Amino acid sequence: MFQHLFYHPQVEPLFSNEAYIQYLLDFEAALAKAQATCGIIPTQAAIYIEECCKANNIDIAKIISEVGLGGNANIPLIKQLTAVVKQQNEEAAKYVHLGATSQDVIDTAIMLQSKKAVLQIQEGLSIIISQLKNLAQDHLNTPMIGRSFMQQAKPITFGYKVSTWIDGLERSLQRIDHLLKHAFTLQLGGAVGNLASISDGKKVSVAMANLLALQHPTQSWHTQRDRFAEIASTLAILTGSIAKIAKDISLLMQTEIAEVFEPSGAGKGGSSTMPHKRNPVSSIAILANAQRVPSLVATMLNCMVQDHERATGTWHAEWETLSDIIRLTAGTVHQAQIMTNGLEINKINMLKNLDATNGLIFAENISLALASKIGKIQAHHLVEDLCKKSIEEKVHLLTLASTNEIICQHFLLSDIKDFFKV
Amino acid sequence: MFQHLFYHPQVEPLFSNEAYIQYLLDFEAALAKAQATCGIIPTQAAIYIEECCKANNIDIAKIISEVGLGGNANIPLIKQLTAVVKQQNEEAAKYVHLGATSQDVIDTAIMLQSKKAVLQIQEGLSIIISQLKNLAQDHLNTPMIGRSFMQQAKPITFGYKVSTWIDGLERSLQRIDHLLKHAFTLQLGGAVGNLASISDGKKVSVAMANLLALQHPTQSWHTQRDRFAEIASTLAILTGSIAKIAKDISLLMQTEIAEVFEPSGAGKGGSSTMPHKRNPVSSIAILANAQRVPSLVATMLNCMVQDHERATGTWHAEWETLSDIIRLTAGTVHQAQIMTNGLEINKINMLKNLDATNGLIFAENISLALASKIGKIQAHHLVEDLCKKSIEEKVHLLTLASTNEIICQHFLLSDIKDFFKV
Amino acid sequence: MFQHLFYHPQVEPLFSNEAYIQYLLDFEAALAKAQATCGIIPTQAAIYIEECCKANNIDIAKIISEVGLGGNANIPLIKQLTAVVKQQNEEAAKYVHLGATSQDVIDTAIMLQSKKAVLQIQEGLSIIISQLKNLAQDHLNTPMIGRSFMQQAKPITFGYKVSTWIDGLERSLQRIDHLLKHAFTLQLGGAVGNLASISDGKKVSVAMANLLALQHPTQSWHTQRDRFAEIASTLAILTGSIAKIAKDISLLMQTEIAEVFEPSGAGKGGSSTMPHKRNPVSSIAILANAQRVPSLVATMLNCMVQDHERATGTWHAEWETLSDIIRLTAGTVHQAQIMTNGLEINKINMLKNLDATNGLIFAENISLALASKIGKIQAHHLVEDLCKKSIEEKVHLLTLASTNEIICQHFLLSDIKDFFKV
Amino acid sequence: MFQHLFYHPQVEPLFSNEAYIQYLLDFEAALAKAQATCGIIPTQAAIYIEECCKANNIDIAKIISEVGLGGNANIPLIKQLTAVVKQQNEEAAKYVHLGATSQDVIDTAIMLQSKKAVLQIQEGLSIIISQLKNLAQDHLNTPMIGRSFMQQAKPITFGYKVSTWIDGLERSLQRIDHLLKHAFTLQLGGAVGNLASISDGKKVSVAMANLLALQHPTQSWHTQRDRFAEIASTLAILTGSIAKIAKDISLLMQTEIAEVFEPSGAGKGGSSTMPHKRNPVSSIAILANAQRVPSLVATMLNCMVQDHERATGTWHAEWETLSDIIRLTAGTVHQAQIMTNGLEINKINMLKNLDATNGLIFAENISLALASKIGKIQAHHLVEDLCKKSIEEKVHLLTLASTNEIICQHFLLSDIKDFFKV
Repeated sequence: MFQHLFYHPQVEPLFSNEAYIQYLLDFEAALAKAQATCGIIPTQAAIYIEECCKANNIDIAKIISEVGLGGNANIPLIKQLTAVVKQQNEEAAKYVHLGATSQDVIDTAIMLQSKKAVLQIQEGLSIIISQLKNLAQDHLNTPMIGRSFMQQAKPITFGYKVSTWIDGLERSLQRIDHLLKHAFTLQLGGAVGNLASISDGKKVSVAMANLLALQHPTQSWHTQRDRFAEIASTLAILTGSIAKIAKDISLLMQTEIAEVFEPSGAGKGGSSTMPHKRNPVSSIAILANAQRVPSLVATMLNCMVQDHERATGTWHAEWETLSDIIRLTAGTVHQAQIMTNGLEINKINMLKNLDATNGLIFAENISLALASKIGKIQAHHLVEDLCKKSIEEKVHLLTLASTNEIICQHFLLSDIKDFFKV
Repeated sequence: MFQHLFYHPQVEPLFSNEAYIQYLLDFEAALAKAQATCGIIPTQAAIYIEECCKANNIDIAKIISEVGLGGNANIPLIKQLTAVVKQQNEEAAKYVHLGATSQDVIDTAIMLQSKKAVLQIQEGLSIIISQLKNLAQDHLNTPMIGRSFMQQAKPITFGYKVSTWIDGLERSLQRIDHLLKHAFTLQLGGAVGNLASISDGKKVSVAMANLLALQHPTQSWHTQRDRFAEIASTLAILTGSIAKIAKDISLLMQTEIAEVFEPSGAGKGGSSTMPHKRNPVSSIAILANAQRVPSLVATMLNCMVQDHERATGTWHAEWETLSDIIRLTAGTVHQAQIMTNGLEINKINMLKNLDATNGLIFAENISLALASKIGKIQAHHLVEDLCKKSIEEKVHLLTLASTNEIICQHFLLSDIKDFFKV
Repeated sequence: MFQHLFYHPQVEPLFSNEAYIQYLLDFEAALAKAQATCGIIPTQAAIYIEECCKANNIDIAKIISEVGLGGNANIPLIKQLTAVVKQQNEEAAKYVHLGATSQDVIDTAIMLQSKKAVLQIQEGLSIIISQLKNLAQDHLNTPMIGRSFMQQAKPITFGYKVSTWIDGLERSLQRIDHLLKHAFTLQLGGAVGNLASISDGKKVSVAMANLLALQHPTQSWHTQRDRFAEIASTLAILTGSIAKIAKDISLLMQTEIAEVFEPSGAGKGGSSTMPHKRNPVSSIAILANAQRVPSLVATMLNCMVQDHERATGTWHAEWETLSDIIRLTAGTVHQAQIMTNGLEINKINMLKNLDATNGLIFAENISLALASKIGKIQAHHLVEDLCKKSIEEKVHLLTLASTNEIICQHFLLSDIKDFFKV
Repeated sequence: MFQHLFYHPQVEPLFSNEAYIQYLLDFEAALAKAQATCGIIPTQAAIYIEECCKANNIDIAKIISEVGLGGNANIPLIKQLTAVVKQQNEEAAKYVHLGATSQDVIDTAIMLQSKKAVLQIQEGLSIIISQLKNLAQDHLNTPMIGRSFMQQAKPITFGYKVSTWIDGLERSLQRIDHLLKHAFTLQLGGAVGNLASISDGKKVSVAMANLLALQHPTQSWHTQRDRFAEIASTLAILTGSIAKIAKDISLLMQTEIAEVFEPSGAGKGGSSTMPHKRNPVSSIAILANAQRVPSLVATMLNCMVQDHERATGTWHAEWETLSDIIRLTAGTVHQAQIMTNGLEINKINMLKNLDATNGLIFAENISLALASKIGKIQAHHLVEDLCKKSIEEKVHLLTLASTNEIICQHFLLSDIKDFFKV
């Protein structure tokens, strides 16, 4: 129902049942091919197997209905695959899934699927960064108020604000590059992970890793799940950094602030009952996703505590959890790509808001300058008093400062006016 | 892919896209009917609207594709529904969704959907409890070892163990009964929740609550989400209590312990490579679900911190999260129903394991009896020494105790033998 | 370091090391007394034991240093207590901790401690509700804008807004009342929970529950942790409902909105560098706590999956986690008590903000009234066009509406003006 | 209370109130020194300030009591520090904390503190790995059963099992090395992060980073919190990998399995009521910590969604949460160091357990060998039948296999016997 809101239209297909079955079959094809290469099974058998490893040969509904019996999708799949191969060639059927265990197949399939999705996340992130860089460049000198604890603090430029967004994203891009280089890894170990059931196991696994463009593991990792936890937390960090931007935009889109707006699109963000509203739809989706991803990461981290050589439940809990993390992160990137492309900036409102405090936001300029003349504490107290007066009497701070005896003792009127410049 | 493993076959249909749309439409039908009853819209219009409020009148794919624009499913649905009604009767179309806001519809739909699911959870839980009660009755006097910190501690009976399982479940049943009485509540408030846009708002909402068999809210609760948090945590507690049973069973099914087994079924729990294995498939699914639900509850609790009259993202994050909690809890109940129906008990292995420590598990019987004769600390030390000797020399503790001078000073041989009875 | 920020000054002492040890000792005193009452140990021994059960008899530093050996605080405590009693009376020392297990003591101590803290939370919550009720009463007719998705939506009153806050809190108060009636429960079971090591166990436990003012358990609950999970989630729901208020206040305190302010206090909320700022210090603390509590609840729920009769790590993980949940909730209540006592309302800014959209917030009044004349969709489109014009040409919507042909066809000028009233 | 159970005795002091205040003061000293170096403040003033920046000059209790007013510890600290400096030299007092904001000080202090703790974690981890490598070496050829889903699966060696533990830990060591190279970073930006209030800001910050041995940030990162999230998740992954070992050990220590034991120490792991028990105390502490850390990471990730230039509550929620993650991880490392130093291996029980299934664990050896002769499916079925017979008739599988017609057709008796070798 929500695939166009929380998720990524180009990434979702990677997580369909068909795609999942295909990734499982890709493992079986590569296993046979690698075993043939290593001279363990006949080349012809591998060719038959590879040809049969296509999802459209498989009755997926049947697999779904049998998942509850064996506890995973691979057990019923192997039954069907073996039957399909047997129809082509009885001899070849003997070599299907030879020596591998279900977890080899499933873990590798998840790695293939995740890697493809992360590549799309990486691409989207690069686009976001590039869009933001243009924005930062355009607004290098666009003054606006900086805010702390939801209060106006001191002036910044919008370009500066965007540059801090970019800063976080660029570190995430580096983390994802790093991830793509080392985290996506083949699983092959057989029943207890020690490759005992696979002749020439090491050679076969090297060949498979090459065929599938995955890292070759130092050890099979059936119950060493740190790579999944790292993928999960790296993506969650990206989601967090993007949501920080969405948070700022949703706050800046507030009717009373109205400094920045999500790009408008046909029919987007309208309210069914309030024709004047302009809802931050992309920000909402991003913020919603960022509420969900962290807890899912906690589940992945909890799942690391696995028992013995193959785990009881903690493995199974990872499947949909990791998918959800990747899919929600991809959706976050997707919405951010839309949101940062054509963000509308209202410079006039930015200037208007800069003046909302009757000059109080410039108070520190006075205290800092005064500090070197009369001491920090004294300067602070003097300016604090002027500020209180400004608030109570609704007089601009510049008026008060330029008539204050002590300040005038130390500064010219032109200096004082300069304190109030962004 | 995993609907037969982690989820509940009878509950899943409640969460299909069609069912979701129908729940939304149920709201619209009830709204029109209630407004007609209160004389706000023409009775005939309400009849037309009600007739049109059927999911098969709706192009769901179109809704899915438009969810990204308005940020929820209701906005595109109302467009379609209005068009459908208009085809029947132009006048009636004016009264579709009158005065309500999207969140009224969606929150109410989720309440209807959740309530139906929780009723099935309640039913399943009752069955589990009743199955366990039979089991406890059958094994009131079946001795087994009690374990603490994964160590053999002192004897219990299997009936006692099951009775502690039941104890937790019965409190959950009470919590769910309580939930069903007060938590599932109508949402109706209009744009900012104050019923301003709905003529005779209070009367209409009372009528709607009756029609939909939901509680009438004291206030609209657009940003007061405690009821959802309570539903979520109540279900999570049930999942936790069931998972405690699954934990015990998976431990008791260990090859070396082999005291209790999940009921076997055709093709269930077999391994593709190890013909002798019997995997705890239901326990695995339950344990996996229990790894996932708590974090989802954290998300629901985080989502309570909502802004103003209608929230920015925290509302949206609830949708799939609450569904997942309910669906996973229902799946947990489903698997527990299977698992507790025909659980196999191996009394012989229970007796064998009781004897695994050469009588050490009965050591405290001796210390307690001795304590009143020679003091607690002294008794403890004496028995501790005997235990060490028993371990080092691999002699049964009974042999050592019945030849110990101090013990024999205070007890007859028949007394000493009695210490070693369960 | 942060006890005055995130925590509750009256609740913190309940969680000191001294208090913890005293709660453990309270169990031992009650056990002895109950056993004496039931005729199991000599009355005189119970009197000696009770007299010795005072934290200042105990070398707490020594206990802390030994906790790592036995894995809990009770094991070294019993050693010390026994020695202390022995100094008074050698005979009495034999009856210290008779038949109980460490978890009996610790669980009961936590229940005593938690109950006392929850009573203070309950009291604080009542005060908050009463303060808010006064506020709601005072502002029944104070108009302000309602906001959805951070956008101005339609007018409400501040009294209405406060009444929605109260609504959530009152349900929490009921939940806490319910909790206090049934959740806080004695633990007594001995090594494997079945009371086998405690003569006349049932009678002793009934007597103890009375002495300690705790519920009597239906069963010992060493590995049935639903009550702790319920305490945790009930408090988390309260924290969430309070944080919703803090969220609103922090948003309303924004410099550009400036409608509501936390009460000011000497030195409170000032900035070290910006003399004009007024930080929402209580809101900040509450929001910070509400970020933390939900995840801690997830831990408590995860901890429910306990093994056998006494759990390996999942019990231990509860200790500090539950304390933190209670302490943070108490701190939240404490800050909310301060925050809601003397909240400053700026009615002038509320009115000013109501006018920020040139009347657009009243657009729905026109569409609703028009709907019955020209149909909902048509009315919506007409008003949508007027709104666009109002935004583009910066003209008040009233001006546009009162000169629109179709609107004037159906309404008098006085009617149109009425549409723009709160 | 639990510092010797869940925490690390050498790391705890880094998180005392005194240490925290000292880290804050270290920032102030470095700031003054760097500003002096850059010619912004007089060298002599910097010397005075540096001399005063010692925690024992500060009334910490007073700070604690004032934290609730300003919302952090730095505001009251600066007041005290300025007074202390003033007593030494009135002029120097003007230059205390010049241009910095509280968050600069606090974030930097946390970075200093965390880095020091992570260095100790790194050291402990190296020791654990080295201890495990010795163990793996010693047991390269110690046969034991591998287990999947809590069931006996196929044989492995204990050396292999340990090598998989090491595999996960070594990746964590690399992650921590990487972390230490880039994550620990100076914070300096002033009120809104843009260094506007610090003369020669860039030069000063480079100098400060050098003085404090922290990374120099590309931007101030007041609301870009990815580094903290990365530190948190990296440590959580380590905790997870260690807890996997503790999980295995606690399972292997089960009375009925008894293959591996935590090293015993004076008074460690004993039970107060069952003299024969040997509790896995270190495993328990590690498993408890691993239950808690993941949720804390979720909080850190949730906290990334910060508002504007300085965040409202999400910053404050990080403080104790990050400390807890680091402290619990350090405690986990500490217990693992103890646990892996002198782990006791019971080879005899390992052999005994290998024989528990009457040879069924070797069944796949037969099927694999048979597969190449009669086809995989046929082989599987034949062996499955033999296994069933072995279970039902309690006959060793070797006996059945060596009398089976088909098997004997293809293999010599000596071959068949070889199938049953580890």
